[in-house]
Amino acid sequence: MNDRFARLTLMRLAEPGDAVMGRLVAAHGPEAVVAQIRAGRLDAGFTRWFAGTCRRGADGRADDEAAAKLDRILASWTARLKTADPGCDLADGERIGARLIVPGDPEWPTQLDDLGDSRPHALWLHGEANLRFSCVRSVAIVGSRVATPYGTHVATEFGAGLSERGYGVVSGGAYGVDGAAHRGALACDAPTVAVLACGADVTYPTAHHDLFAAVRTQGLLVSECPMGVRPTRPRFLVRNRLIAALSRGTLVVEAAVRSGALNTAGHATGLNRHLAAVPGPVTSDTSAGCHRLIRQGAAACVTTPEEMIELVGAIGGDLAPEPRGPVFSRDRLSPETRRVLEAVPTRAGAGPAIIALTAGVDLDTVLSCLGGLAAAGYVERVPRGWRLRPSAPPDHP
Amino acid sequence: MNDRFARLTLMRLAEPGDAVMGRLVAAHGPEAVVAQIRAGRLDAGFTRWFAGTCRRGADGRADDEAAAKLDRILASWTARLKTADPGCDLADGERIGARLIVPGDPEWPTQLDDLGDSRPHALWLHGEANLRFSCVRSVAIVGSRVATPYGTHVATEFGAGLSERGYGVVSGGAYGVDGAAHRGALACDAPTVAVLACGADVTYPTAHHDLFAAVRTQGLLVSECPMGVRPTRPRFLVRNRLIAALSRGTLVVEAAVRSGALNTAGHATGLNRHLAAVPGPVTSDTSAGCHRLIRQGAAACVTTPEEMIELVGAIGGDLAPEPRGPVFSRDRLSPETRRVLEAVPTRAGAGPAIIALTAGVDLDTVLSCLGGLAAAGYVERVPRGWRLRPSAPPDHP
Repeated sequence: MNDRFARLTLMRLAEPGDAVMGRLVAAHGPEAVVAQIRAGRLDAGFTRWFAGTCRRGADGRADDEAAAKLDRILASWTARLKTADPGCDLADGERIGARLIVPGDPEWPTQLDDLGDSRPHALWLHGEANLRFSCVRSVAIVGSRVATPYGTHVATEFGAGLSERGYGVVSGGAYGVDGAAHRGALACDAPTVAVLACGADVTYPTAHHDLFAAVRTQGLLVSECPMGVRPTRPRFLVRNRLIAALSRGTLVVEAAVRSGALNTAGHATGLNRHLAAVPGPVTSDTSAGCHRLIRQGAAACVTTPEEMIELVGAIGGDLAPEPRGPVFSRDRLSPETRRVLEAVPTRAGAGPAIIALTAGVDLDTVLSCLGGLAAAGYVERVPRGWRLRPSAPPDHP
Repeated sequence: MNDRFARLTLMRLAEPGDAVMGRLVAAHGPEAVVAQIRAGRLDAGFTRWFAGTCRRGADGRADDEAAAKLDRILASWTARLKTADPGCDLADGERIGARLIVPGDPEWPTQLDDLGDSRPHALWLHGEANLRFSCVRSVAIVGSRVATPYGTHVATEFGAGLSERGYGVVSGGAYGVDGAAHRGALACDAPTVAVLACGADVTYPTAHHDLFAAVRTQGLLVSECPMGVRPTRPRFLVRNRLIAALSRGTLVVEAAVRSGALNTAGHATGLNRHLAAVPGPVTSDTSAGCHRLIRQGAAACVTTPEEMIELVGAIGGDLAPEPRGPVFSRDRLSPETRRVLEAVPTRAGAGPAIIALTAGVDLDTVLSCLGGLAAAGYVERVPRGWRLRPSAPPDHP
């Protein structure tokens, strides 16, 4: 049994992200692990390590408990081994046009190594894009499945804006924010990566059939589950670590205080990836999770795609423009001249002495300022003195 | 001429916040300053200090320029001195029912000393509340005059929420956020303080006639301007320092990138007051200023009145509750039990061996978990094995 067949078998035996299995594979390689499970006897060194992770006191009873626990784990793997058929899995995947990649393949994204013992054994890819290239410069956009129109709009804008600027968009293919982020990227003809919590041949949610078809044409569906596996609640949470690990940073668009998006955010922080959140109305429960992340200092407050790129991009090289208000021609006047201008009446004119009193400056200053203001078109002479020109340059305090 | 008359005179001579006048008063007291201006000759030590602040190089020319500049300032004060009539000002104020307070009075808020040379000479108060008491525990709420319905709603909620919790609300009496904050406080029968940029007898904006009447009944109108003075653009900006200085912290509800509210925010930071901003939709220009403050780390992200009080209140004593999501009965299940529960089918039953395979746990664990889940009402026995009870405790991933 070769490495790929062994990995296909392991995908059937253990749940995704199972760190006990991951540790075993890291120590012995997938082929030896399958052989050990088949023989019903795990490596002695590994058994000792496992007992060490369970040990709390120094008594023998803890070791007995660890042994019993490992026996139960082994029993569950052994039970599943009977039904595992890697050849059939491979054929099933290739029939629908998917491909399997394993660590060491050219398309394998090495940033997944950051997951340590919970690194996936292999990935099923279904689509035209190259996973490694799509994720080199990528951002994960995650958020509520029951997004508000605001959340959907913002996710689409970020999906499109990041794509336009050459960043891949990674998300989970779910309703709400995920789907909107994918659609924004697709609208820009950019590849986008949907990481599924089910087999690559399962369309969940089913209403996303057309979306997934578009993602396959332009980007990729990615799954660490064997073909045909249905999504379950724990699989969603475990899948989230892949979304965080594949991208340089995670952006939470809308998330309730208790949500899968915050789970992904936690993975991003744990993996030393950048974390950002989009603020929203404080009256909206679906923004409460974003605000909590910002308040805790866990996430940067990000309002535009440029600001997200500033966060994940090259230091100093991808700075977002500072938001700026309008500039008025009045801004160029000196403070003294502005004071004089403020003192000039709108309709009936006033003489320089009155203007000086109102402005609180001396007469010489008023006369010199009025000359400049008249030349610039702000004020005009009338029989009774000076007044503002009705068509003066526009301003707004 | 006594201290109060002298201060009333100074209010007429210099614009509010004039730090040159403030420095002179701090050094010599208001009565001596009026005498010096009347004599047309400022104190020699002060003249030297003024030259020092203007000096850039060490040549005599800079000193000549400073002397000429001070002459111009003195000329503007002297010109206004001719029309100043403190007795008339006092009578005007008392006629409408306002009162004048000066530093040292019991009602004078000593936190205004933080303004240094730009501390007001005196304040006109118009209303029933005590200024000092109203501001001991107070928050300034500022924001856009062209607030969105969201901004108006949030300002009202914060005005009411802070008042309910015993905090005074200070604002500027303007349209939009200011007015909404005052109204929120008034709705809770709490005193609220409106700091005006015009005379205490001037209703600006005029449409706030009824609002100002309500503020006078329950709180206070405050002005550092003499009676009858109209608001000008610079006076709004200078007024903002009083709003920041009177309160423990400033909350920006909605503010464009260029706005008076950000000017107040700058004063709050300069005065070592707390600064907070309410996030809003990133699609709204009137929240862009708030987001910039949060992104820069200048302002805390605040979403509820409790969070504002946590910021300005007693350290450790006024902590806001962490926002929490709903708690489901499933949360109390062990991870293993949850995995088993996930593997139990909805309609047709499944036997323990199938459930064990699906869940990836051993048979003994499944049997023990199923017993507990049945007792708790999650699953039920059917002829073909186990299935979820239709009326199982509610859950949401």
